[in-house]
Amino acid sequence: MNKEDTICAVSTPHGMGGIAVIRVSGEDAANIVAKCWKGADISTVESHKAHLGKIVEPNGGETLDEVVMTIFRAPHSFTGEDVIEISCHGSMWIQQQIMKTLIDCGCRAATGGEFTRRAFMNGRMDLSQAEAVADLIASSSRASHRIAISQMRGDFSRKLNELREKLLHFVSLMELELDFSEEDVEFANRDEMIKLAEEIQNVIARLTDSFAVGNVIKNGLPVAIVGETNAGKSTLLNYLLHDDKALVSDIHGTTRDVIEDTITIAGTMFRFIDTAGIRETHDKIETMGIERTFRKIDEAQLVLWIIDGPAAISTEENSVEKLSVKIFPHCSGKDVIAVVNKVDLMSEEMQQNVKEELSRIFKAAPNESAPKTGKQIFISAKHQKNLDELEGLLKNAASLPENDENAVIVTNSRHYEALKCAGEAIARTLDGLHAGISGDFVSQDIRECMHYLGEITGEITTDDILGNVFKHFCIGK
Amino acid sequence: MNKEDTICAVSTPHGMGGIAVIRVSGEDAANIVAKCWKGADISTVESHKAHLGKIVEPNGGETLDEVVMTIFRAPHSFTGEDVIEISCHGSMWIQQQIMKTLIDCGCRAATGGEFTRRAFMNGRMDLSQAEAVADLIASSSRASHRIAISQMRGDFSRKLNELREKLLHFVSLMELELDFSEEDVEFANRDEMIKLAEEIQNVIARLTDSFAVGNVIKNGLPVAIVGETNAGKSTLLNYLLHDDKALVSDIHGTTRDVIEDTITIAGTMFRFIDTAGIRETHDKIETMGIERTFRKIDEAQLVLWIIDGPAAISTEENSVEKLSVKIFPHCSGKDVIAVVNKVDLMSEEMQQNVKEELSRIFKAAPNESAPKTGKQIFISAKHQKNLDELEGLLKNAASLPENDENAVIVTNSRHYEALKCAGEAIARTLDGLHAGISGDFVSQDIRECMHYLGEITGEITTDDILGNVFKHFCIGK
Repeated sequence: MNKEDTICAVSTPHGMGGIAVIRVSGEDAANIVAKCWKGADISTVESHKAHLGKIVEPNGGETLDEVVMTIFRAPHSFTGEDVIEISCHGSMWIQQQIMKTLIDCGCRAATGGEFTRRAFMNGRMDLSQAEAVADLIASSSRASHRIAISQMRGDFSRKLNELREKLLHFVSLMELELDFSEEDVEFANRDEMIKLAEEIQNVIARLTDSFAVGNVIKNGLPVAIVGETNAGKSTLLNYLLHDDKALVSDIHGTTRDVIEDTITIAGTMFRFIDTAGIRETHDKIETMGIERTFRKIDEAQLVLWIIDGPAAISTEENSVEKLSVKIFPHCSGKDVIAVVNKVDLMSEEMQQNVKEELSRIFKAAPNESAPKTGKQIFISAKHQKNLDELEGLLKNAASLPENDENAVIVTNSRHYEALKCAGEAIARTLDGLHAGISGDFVSQDIRECMHYLGEITGEITTDDILGNVFKHFCIGK
Repeated sequence: MNKEDTICAVSTPHGMGGIAVIRVSGEDAANIVAKCWKGADISTVESHKAHLGKIVEPNGGETLDEVVMTIFRAPHSFTGEDVIEISCHGSMWIQQQIMKTLIDCGCRAATGGEFTRRAFMNGRMDLSQAEAVADLIASSSRASHRIAISQMRGDFSRKLNELREKLLHFVSLMELELDFSEEDVEFANRDEMIKLAEEIQNVIARLTDSFAVGNVIKNGLPVAIVGETNAGKSTLLNYLLHDDKALVSDIHGTTRDVIEDTITIAGTMFRFIDTAGIRETHDKIETMGIERTFRKIDEAQLVLWIIDGPAAISTEENSVEKLSVKIFPHCSGKDVIAVVNKVDLMSEEMQQNVKEELSRIFKAAPNESAPKTGKQIFISAKHQKNLDELEGLLKNAASLPENDENAVIVTNSRHYEALKCAGEAIARTLDGLHAGISGDFVSQDIRECMHYLGEITGEITTDDILGNVFKHFCIGK
């Protein structure tokens, strides 16, 4: 990372819009932009003040656009460096040409997250706060947004710093003993230490455990929609997603690609996975789709098993029993909702028969492939019958453990892994204390625990860690 | 249109990004934003100055985001009203929630182009300049961008105002004659008038004619890609578009939907239309696709006829002759390029045979279904052989008439229609002058010509015209 160079990127979403914002950051920002700017003198204009002017190609080229330019002088900017924001018309062509011009004038195109990386390097935020910026941008529900805002504000960092301070106090006392080891003094009361280590272990465990919830909040509860071809999976998915992303037709086997999309119901995000219909097929593309279907069920926590109601037990080949044998081996430990579709085409008697058959199948499932729970509901996706009740079932299936709104929740797998390592180190510390082993070994475990906590906030970093963190950022942030 | 209310919209492109900008415009902008803003006092902050603060839900709700807020006080803003720009994190959820909060606090969600409409209503620009804003945003090539910038700067308006002024002078003299009609004076020299009217007719004709060029510059030259299934149409289109939008597989008939995309080669935009392969089929979806294929050829100006080279004349059913009979009736008056694909699988002799066969077919085409021009080229889409030469052929086929860079070019069909009406009115004026008919009839025609010119710049407007103009704008502009 060359801290000296000046970077530029389109910071607004990719595409055409009313306006777009291009950001420049670095020591040379003012000099570089001045080469393609017609308007007030950038070297002397007031910081944070918007100026109307033009971006022109250097050396007598064309006027690219009329823009609004604002300079945020160091250190009072997002990155801590001189930052210039250019607000231009949102044409793709203009965005590209202004970027090209800035690069011609001496900027470098920023890589993903490079602005935030500079903010971190310049001490404007710690690493977990920087990660919260990416989470905040990706947040798509109130819950994930709340966690990201709290993390960006530094709540998580403060929690970790508290732990580190306690550990530091602890380890200092131990290491002091080592200095006086010949005198066999004990500055650190072992009982108090065990109490403190247990306390820290509890906090780390609570944070680690919160990841199960945090992950669902951040990435959505994975729901696989499976069933026979033509059972109405795409129609149902379209309804749930309220758009027409999945191609619906009355010809068997039209959904060849696995389509994923998320929807938020009552604050919980669901990640729906529509899959190719399951049937015997010799179509090359379709067979690939069906294999993927089974892999997708493995990834899901909740399975919506869509059944073509009228055909459910009337014909031999479509029997639900036959299908359950295919699907259930992938549903062990998952919640399964059998969604009997096309209820409008079923007599009362048919409905009763299907209901009993399904109950029987759920009960009869052999232990090793039994779903955790098996529910059933009769709907019509086409005529939107009972769909609110289905959403209700989804909500219940996803119900997260009650959560203190102010509790810190871990949503980042990097943090989760660091916390797990920290947890192991503190467990070793406790073992050592209980066994009464020598202070220098114990202090080594404590130092290791502190190391992992420091990795989260970025007090300990390596290029690898930074590379991994910022590669997930979008360009322009 | 209630000029009193305050509108808000996300002005940056739709989607997720580093940042997004939400715009508020109207008399109450400052009061409304103040209800959900924590930071410097909006009622007193300096205009055009960026302030860091927070957007919070009113009545003790949550902090939605840390944002940068800038107020542009009337009349020094885009719309001429108080405008507030809120630069927030580019999460979809945050964008939605801030919009919701602004609406809860008293804003109305803006309709498409409503900010620009207000700029027009407040005299910040004329109508053709307002339209240029939309064109500028949609511009995707240097040529279309140059025209839009020139129109936004007012070059077109100035041209039209010149014409109107000349006509006004003209009509004033005529109408003065009418006041003195009993005395039979002639203030307006008829010969000079004819000369002036002819001059104006020429300018209008030149502008009207420029639309043929302007339309291609703005919307791209429509190019249909047609051919048998499996001839390699999608592979070629993917190469030309440099991405993987069309699904490519080795199974016949995978492109069922008509895919359109544009690419700019050497400053000229091409609008490529990939079509379903042409073959006898009983597949319901595919048959619909083939019908659409023929409709799409009708719309194109240039047809790329992709031929499976190795199969071109070797098998009876794939014969190029048979296919030409299907395609040519839709190619009358168009440029056709026969693109023989898979040249890597063809012997020298095969290539020679196909070449001769194609020349024969182009020559033999009956007059009523003969392409304007028929060229051929041998390529390999898969191995990217001869593709640069193909791009060269495309460039030549699209070669626009030489154009003075400073000439005003009409790209807007509304302007084109108004100009055509103005042209008819000036033609009637000339007829009248030549026939020596009475001044009051002539002046009526002149007034009509002025009316149509005024419609373009917006001096004459109706709600219909305004509605039509601004409905094409994106929301947030």
